[in-house]
Amino acid sequence: MRTAEEYMEKLFKMRKNVYYDGELIGRDDPRLRPGINVICETFNYAADPQYEELLTATSHLTGKKVNRFTHIHQSTDDLLKKQEMTRFMCQRVGGCVQRCMGIDALNALSVVTKDMDNALGTSYHERFLNYLRYFQENDLVGNCAQTDVKGDRSLRPHQQEDPDLYLRVVEKREDGIVVCGAKAHNTIAPYADEIIVVPTRMMTEKDADWAVAFAVPADADGVTQIIRISNPRPRKKLDAPIAQYGSADSLTVFDHVFVPWERVFMCGEWQFAGQLALLFATYHRHSYTGCKPAVTDIIMGASALVAEYNGVPKAPHVRDALVELITVAELVYGAGIAAGVKAKKAASGTYIPEVVYTNVARYYAGINVYHEHEILAELAGGLPATLPPEGDFLNDDTKGYLEKYIMRKAGISAENQHRCFRMISDLLVSAHAGVKQVAGVHGGGSPIMEKIAIYGQYDIEEKKKLAKYLAGIKE
Amino acid sequence: MRTAEEYMEKLFKMRKNVYYDGELIGRDDPRLRPGINVICETFNYAADPQYEELLTATSHLTGKKVNRFTHIHQSTDDLLKKQEMTRFMCQRVGGCVQRCMGIDALNALSVVTKDMDNALGTSYHERFLNYLRYFQENDLVGNCAQTDVKGDRSLRPHQQEDPDLYLRVVEKREDGIVVCGAKAHNTIAPYADEIIVVPTRMMTEKDADWAVAFAVPADADGVTQIIRISNPRPRKKLDAPIAQYGSADSLTVFDHVFVPWERVFMCGEWQFAGQLALLFATYHRHSYTGCKPAVTDIIMGASALVAEYNGVPKAPHVRDALVELITVAELVYGAGIAAGVKAKKAASGTYIPEVVYTNVARYYAGINVYHEHEILAELAGGLPATLPPEGDFLNDDTKGYLEKYIMRKAGISAENQHRCFRMISDLLVSAHAGVKQVAGVHGGGSPIMEKIAIYGQYDIEEKKKLAKYLAGIKE
Amino acid sequence: MRTAEEYMEKLFKMRKNVYYDGELIGRDDPRLRPGINVICETFNYAADPQYEELLTATSHLTGKKVNRFTHIHQSTDDLLKKQEMTRFMCQRVGGCVQRCMGIDALNALSVVTKDMDNALGTSYHERFLNYLRYFQENDLVGNCAQTDVKGDRSLRPHQQEDPDLYLRVVEKREDGIVVCGAKAHNTIAPYADEIIVVPTRMMTEKDADWAVAFAVPADADGVTQIIRISNPRPRKKLDAPIAQYGSADSLTVFDHVFVPWERVFMCGEWQFAGQLALLFATYHRHSYTGCKPAVTDIIMGASALVAEYNGVPKAPHVRDALVELITVAELVYGAGIAAGVKAKKAASGTYIPEVVYTNVARYYAGINVYHEHEILAELAGGLPATLPPEGDFLNDDTKGYLEKYIMRKAGISAENQHRCFRMISDLLVSAHAGVKQVAGVHGGGSPIMEKIAIYGQYDIEEKKKLAKYLAGIKE
Amino acid sequence: MRTAEEYMEKLFKMRKNVYYDGELIGRDDPRLRPGINVICETFNYAADPQYEELLTATSHLTGKKVNRFTHIHQSTDDLLKKQEMTRFMCQRVGGCVQRCMGIDALNALSVVTKDMDNALGTSYHERFLNYLRYFQENDLVGNCAQTDVKGDRSLRPHQQEDPDLYLRVVEKREDGIVVCGAKAHNTIAPYADEIIVVPTRMMTEKDADWAVAFAVPADADGVTQIIRISNPRPRKKLDAPIAQYGSADSLTVFDHVFVPWERVFMCGEWQFAGQLALLFATYHRHSYTGCKPAVTDIIMGASALVAEYNGVPKAPHVRDALVELITVAELVYGAGIAAGVKAKKAASGTYIPEVVYTNVARYYAGINVYHEHEILAELAGGLPATLPPEGDFLNDDTKGYLEKYIMRKAGISAENQHRCFRMISDLLVSAHAGVKQVAGVHGGGSPIMEKIAIYGQYDIEEKKKLAKYLAGIKE
Repeated sequence: MRTAEEYMEKLFKMRKNVYYDGELIGRDDPRLRPGINVICETFNYAADPQYEELLTATSHLTGKKVNRFTHIHQSTDDLLKKQEMTRFMCQRVGGCVQRCMGIDALNALSVVTKDMDNALGTSYHERFLNYLRYFQENDLVGNCAQTDVKGDRSLRPHQQEDPDLYLRVVEKREDGIVVCGAKAHNTIAPYADEIIVVPTRMMTEKDADWAVAFAVPADADGVTQIIRISNPRPRKKLDAPIAQYGSADSLTVFDHVFVPWERVFMCGEWQFAGQLALLFATYHRHSYTGCKPAVTDIIMGASALVAEYNGVPKAPHVRDALVELITVAELVYGAGIAAGVKAKKAASGTYIPEVVYTNVARYYAGINVYHEHEILAELAGGLPATLPPEGDFLNDDTKGYLEKYIMRKAGISAENQHRCFRMISDLLVSAHAGVKQVAGVHGGGSPIMEKIAIYGQYDIEEKKKLAKYLAGIKE
Repeated sequence: MRTAEEYMEKLFKMRKNVYYDGELIGRDDPRLRPGINVICETFNYAADPQYEELLTATSHLTGKKVNRFTHIHQSTDDLLKKQEMTRFMCQRVGGCVQRCMGIDALNALSVVTKDMDNALGTSYHERFLNYLRYFQENDLVGNCAQTDVKGDRSLRPHQQEDPDLYLRVVEKREDGIVVCGAKAHNTIAPYADEIIVVPTRMMTEKDADWAVAFAVPADADGVTQIIRISNPRPRKKLDAPIAQYGSADSLTVFDHVFVPWERVFMCGEWQFAGQLALLFATYHRHSYTGCKPAVTDIIMGASALVAEYNGVPKAPHVRDALVELITVAELVYGAGIAAGVKAKKAASGTYIPEVVYTNVARYYAGINVYHEHEILAELAGGLPATLPPEGDFLNDDTKGYLEKYIMRKAGISAENQHRCFRMISDLLVSAHAGVKQVAGVHGGGSPIMEKIAIYGQYDIEEKKKLAKYLAGIKE
Repeated sequence: MRTAEEYMEKLFKMRKNVYYDGELIGRDDPRLRPGINVICETFNYAADPQYEELLTATSHLTGKKVNRFTHIHQSTDDLLKKQEMTRFMCQRVGGCVQRCMGIDALNALSVVTKDMDNALGTSYHERFLNYLRYFQENDLVGNCAQTDVKGDRSLRPHQQEDPDLYLRVVEKREDGIVVCGAKAHNTIAPYADEIIVVPTRMMTEKDADWAVAFAVPADADGVTQIIRISNPRPRKKLDAPIAQYGSADSLTVFDHVFVPWERVFMCGEWQFAGQLALLFATYHRHSYTGCKPAVTDIIMGASALVAEYNGVPKAPHVRDALVELITVAELVYGAGIAAGVKAKKAASGTYIPEVVYTNVARYYAGINVYHEHEILAELAGGLPATLPPEGDFLNDDTKGYLEKYIMRKAGISAENQHRCFRMISDLLVSAHAGVKQVAGVHGGGSPIMEKIAIYGQYDIEEKKKLAKYLAGIKE
Repeated sequence: MRTAEEYMEKLFKMRKNVYYDGELIGRDDPRLRPGINVICETFNYAADPQYEELLTATSHLTGKKVNRFTHIHQSTDDLLKKQEMTRFMCQRVGGCVQRCMGIDALNALSVVTKDMDNALGTSYHERFLNYLRYFQENDLVGNCAQTDVKGDRSLRPHQQEDPDLYLRVVEKREDGIVVCGAKAHNTIAPYADEIIVVPTRMMTEKDADWAVAFAVPADADGVTQIIRISNPRPRKKLDAPIAQYGSADSLTVFDHVFVPWERVFMCGEWQFAGQLALLFATYHRHSYTGCKPAVTDIIMGASALVAEYNGVPKAPHVRDALVELITVAELVYGAGIAAGVKAKKAASGTYIPEVVYTNVARYYAGINVYHEHEILAELAGGLPATLPPEGDFLNDDTKGYLEKYIMRKAGISAENQHRCFRMISDLLVSAHAGVKQVAGVHGGGSPIMEKIAIYGQYDIEEKKKLAKYLAGIKE
């Protein structure tokens, strides 16, 4: 397994293909560091004996110890551990741990490559296992590029005016394929080793050219990342973990990118595009049953803390607010556990979390994101919005005033009051907070997508039969 | 194990101590039959080989096969099975299966009698096991009488003007104790074999006389049941399962009731009153993680059916409504599974479902009851409220009109349309429906009680620590 | 103006054409009395000098004093008074005052008959005014029969397999027309003098035969009412106003009913069917801005009362609950005031409440009905569902027990506690309560209908323009 | 009346007493310009004949035309106009128009100074009118400084360890008073002419030194403003109105500030502190019945626009979302109209909006803020969070990719798509958006404050009487 240093060393050597606000930047640009800091912790905690059981696993391929973020789930226990690891790591980095993306894509590929081989006589699975071995042994960080830009939402891929609005194969060569298109919302991509591409939806036969899955290095020729960075507001002096971790995402453009066959995992098998799309979504939504409770934990902790600092820790409305937050966190986490317990084993041996529990959990998390922020806003009052910038706490003319007038509950220092409200200000009224809200709604699939998944997978007919039985309707 | 017939045979021989609307009635009164029908199914399904695994268990006392409604949970699997059985049985009887009450009380007693013995050197546990053996071997039906009438809600038991407002020991004799008081909301009691009494709250030392738990036959001397019957509206000709199952509950008055020592399981150990009260609540709320999803299943099935019969099965608002119902059902059931998976083993060997998952599940179920009915009401339209009584469908003057004007989607007969709306009318605009709504809110503990349990059991301090860590606050 | 006695005298002489549960009943059937009691109060209060200003108005036709329930609104003040009268009367009868139906239909007809004449050169308005004069001078009670049974919801009237599934003209004669069909959900019809028929939706040219409006006596030849009665549960001894008022509604069948021309107000003018349908809906929804706050007032009063009787009148959760109820009541009532203030004057001189405020008010009322009952259920606890029937409070064996164990807050007698919980039981767990819930959702148009009205009437394009202006988008 | 230029000319001459992020800045600092731009529009539109009726009024003091933002409401019509003006102006500046603060304070003072004089024989009212004349004739811009920093929330002003935690009189001199303390959350203060101070809560006799109201120039000696600026993200090339308007607020510190008697409007009259606090709140919350619907209008317009640009303008979930937004906007605005219609005239002649309608409107607006943003987030998808910065749309390497891959509905240019999503990004994921969310919850009083006001002002006893009447309870 790699160290954080080794990860960064490799990263900083990559070809410069990342644009930010009109500038071509290196991966060692300090504005990318908060996102990189997050990934580093996935190496650091895996190397810490205290967290080894949670953060590592035994490869089913090699029998060697691997980072759990590169592991293919072999049991219900693996799914529960992954969920637990995700919650823990997101707590430590104050938000999205990001590295789940790659492993969720690999798990989905492990299932679908096998199923395709079984159904169509292809040999994707072995090819996939070779790639997996490389991925595990080098302890790589993967982005999953799924969401096409989609153009006119009422048209299928092959019907779009510009065929590139969904990523597609433009040429098949003896040694590989050439692809064109763009994938959006690619969190982690600017500091990932690998980009793993999967389809965004089910396809028809006419969409066969768009049914493609593969992996490329994140700096492969023809790949351009146009990114947005979402960092917490920098601190001048009042440093804190919450201010050290950020994220970045890219619109990843594929302009005639060549992919050798050994890295191609689907190419034209349109019948399996939907399965792969949904399966990545299922694994990724199951990741959300770990990360979203962690986000709620942070909001909950901040809510409890500010209530204490305001001197009203036992007020009934505080209790009600905390119980609302606990309910969201634990219903989501609980349904995630149920998804693990009711998991199914695929032909490849990979465990797949039960799809309805996974989706109701992610759905419920998604429709509560804004409300959770509202709860914190209600408890914290107006100060997070009007807290003067840190400079005023350092300037001798104003410092005294601020320290005098921020005092609240006896025994809590001005600095700690300041720290508490500075963090809540970060959580509520920063651009970073806004990104987290939107990502909390749409990441891993918007609520409407989970509705469709739930409705499509649930056995409603059985419930209609129940109604008919009770009503005495025979047919 | 008994048959339904044996259960009724014993029942009908009991002393007449049940009053209904001013009348002293026998347990064979036809108005009690819908409730009794529910209990009979717990014997019928246990005797059916197809459901044997679900409805029966192996007694840890005797090694014999017993009805699962008399079993002490020995494993996570027992808890999951009980949850599954509860959902299944509630589906079959169109609502509350009722028999969980007794077994939830016995499980709680199995734990607390052992813990008391360990802490205080008493010998309640063996006494309890003897009673349990009797209960299992005779396949008995138990009511749990927990809720005292409570008088002035701002006063403790010993502070009440009338000391009987909480049930209490008025005399200790060599052969047993004498108790006075009343327990409210005792579902199943009018057709139960046994009444199992447990405290309703934690007690202080001054409340020692009120810290009492015991079991008596439901027709014991001094016991008077003043009941309310909640049956579905009887059908004239259009019979259906939904119309065959009902319930009844009693205000159970204990007027100097003698209880022999072998049936006394707590007597003055005020330190354990709270634990017993909460533990029964925990088991019973875990039952709700099975029964409430079943109630949702019924509403869901009826919703899907009426949408189909109205000709709009695929309308987006129908899909949204069904997804909302699925989400409630499966979050509750999923958290119930998590509670089973994270269960703890007590000193007695009994498994206790994890308390936070249990309570968030019950809480969430409770705060959704009215909304679920609202969803069905929105989909079904006004007809459930204005459907003419069945007589008009039988009278020759009006029958033709009704059959002509109830027609909707082609291919669905007038009778089936009638059956569908008659059932939904039962589910929405009957007194029985109102009782189910209120019971859905308060049964097993009102939402406010679950809030208190959640808030009391959850490790909020850990979440505050997380917030402090992220904010950089050291203390 | 008539007295209640005169109203009943005329009523009881009507032809028997009302069927209830398979029986042909007279209008003097005691089961209809609770509904009739409601209507009587509209005469009683109008005759009471204290309420004269609220309950009466000056006819714009004759200059004479008329019952406001027969008045055509001539000003904003008339609309505000009608709203206020509706809230007041619904408070007094514990629910729906019912008589608004007829006057809402007449106001709509007053507008549309004039608009039709202006557009098409017909002479409906004078005919209507003659009918109105008759209606006002005889102080009549009118039902509005709008909702067709509608058959297959995906087909227009002329497309239905059975053309009668929407009411239609089957013959035009020199002296009048003959109609066939049925109208559903006709509250008040069993004890109304007149039935006023209006279309249920917009029509196309092919639906011209279904574009028909007229009035007939409620016992006209060919009219059959198949009814459902919704009364509060009768009291044995503990009488109370809440137990004296009920309602009934009918499926009104028109089997070749002849209507003379002087009572026909639309016949084939399909272009105006939609306007008339929507206009009745608008007036009726404006009535709901008065009646729904009254229903909330009752729930609010009961909630505050039970909190006091339980000894927790100042608890924060009680305050929160009451504020929620106040907010619903006064947002609805306030938007109703705004609808009156922003009313428009039609060509006929009639004032029409502003349609968006009217619809948002009705919509918001409708989506809160179940939640309001939930609030009362939460505050009242389980007792409304398990309160023993009144007979047990009269029986000497059980009376003492019940009076002993119902005691709560010092100073509140057992009888008053009983009265309080008996009323709340009526409000929550009776069939009557269920009917009120469903009627609260669907009466005057389901939430989905108000959504459509709001969306159709609101100037969304103006808001898009605002967004474009702010975004700097020029087109 | 002044022009925007005259306003700025005076402003830029003020004493430098504004600190931002550790720096003492002039009022001509470009970072303050977006806030100043907002205020300028209140002069510009008043000078525009098209908006004259809305933006100006006739002074009841001088009979001269004045800016409506300096007018004392003399009628219901004035209140309705002010509400309408507020909605209009907030639409034009894309958010809070800010200038309402000062006039809301002056209206409150106009009432309370008169009531104090009547009750106590003081002569504040004339003093106030003199100040008002000065304010109107110079067309001034006022901040209202109400919220004290409050220290320990469980203690009254005189109980605080540091007496300055509520602003107070430290010295009374012949020519005036000297005050110390700080007021928080003072929007507009950095570019206001005047600061008008009113108490934040009711006071007891012991708090008399804290019962103080007065006005000072915003740069008076001893006044220090420590501010936070909340501007939209600056645009490089893609300018748009949404990007031109911002706000700033200050923690305003009063360090031994001298106030001459002619500017003191309360000094020790603790009995009237609560009335003044509540009355300013009432006027300010009534302002919110205008501004919050405008904010909803913007979100609504953006929602409708993005749905169109995505090609799904007629999707049911879009209609539902827009109806939800319309409902919030118009219930709030409608209740605001009702508050105007039911206004009361004070002894001073000033009209006071009805308090319950005002508070339910503000309350409902406040509890919907986050949900409205959630609606926009759901409709807009993930792009607002991941839209690359503007620089990438200008850089030749990336511009082509972005313009290619942002295309959606045919006929909408890449620039307009960009403009649409850039604006929504500003509305959802900027620090400015976060400030608006928190301000939308807490501005003018947090939901909890409105709950208290509603509960305190509503006649609950009358509703209890109604419940008793219906239940047959006589006392």
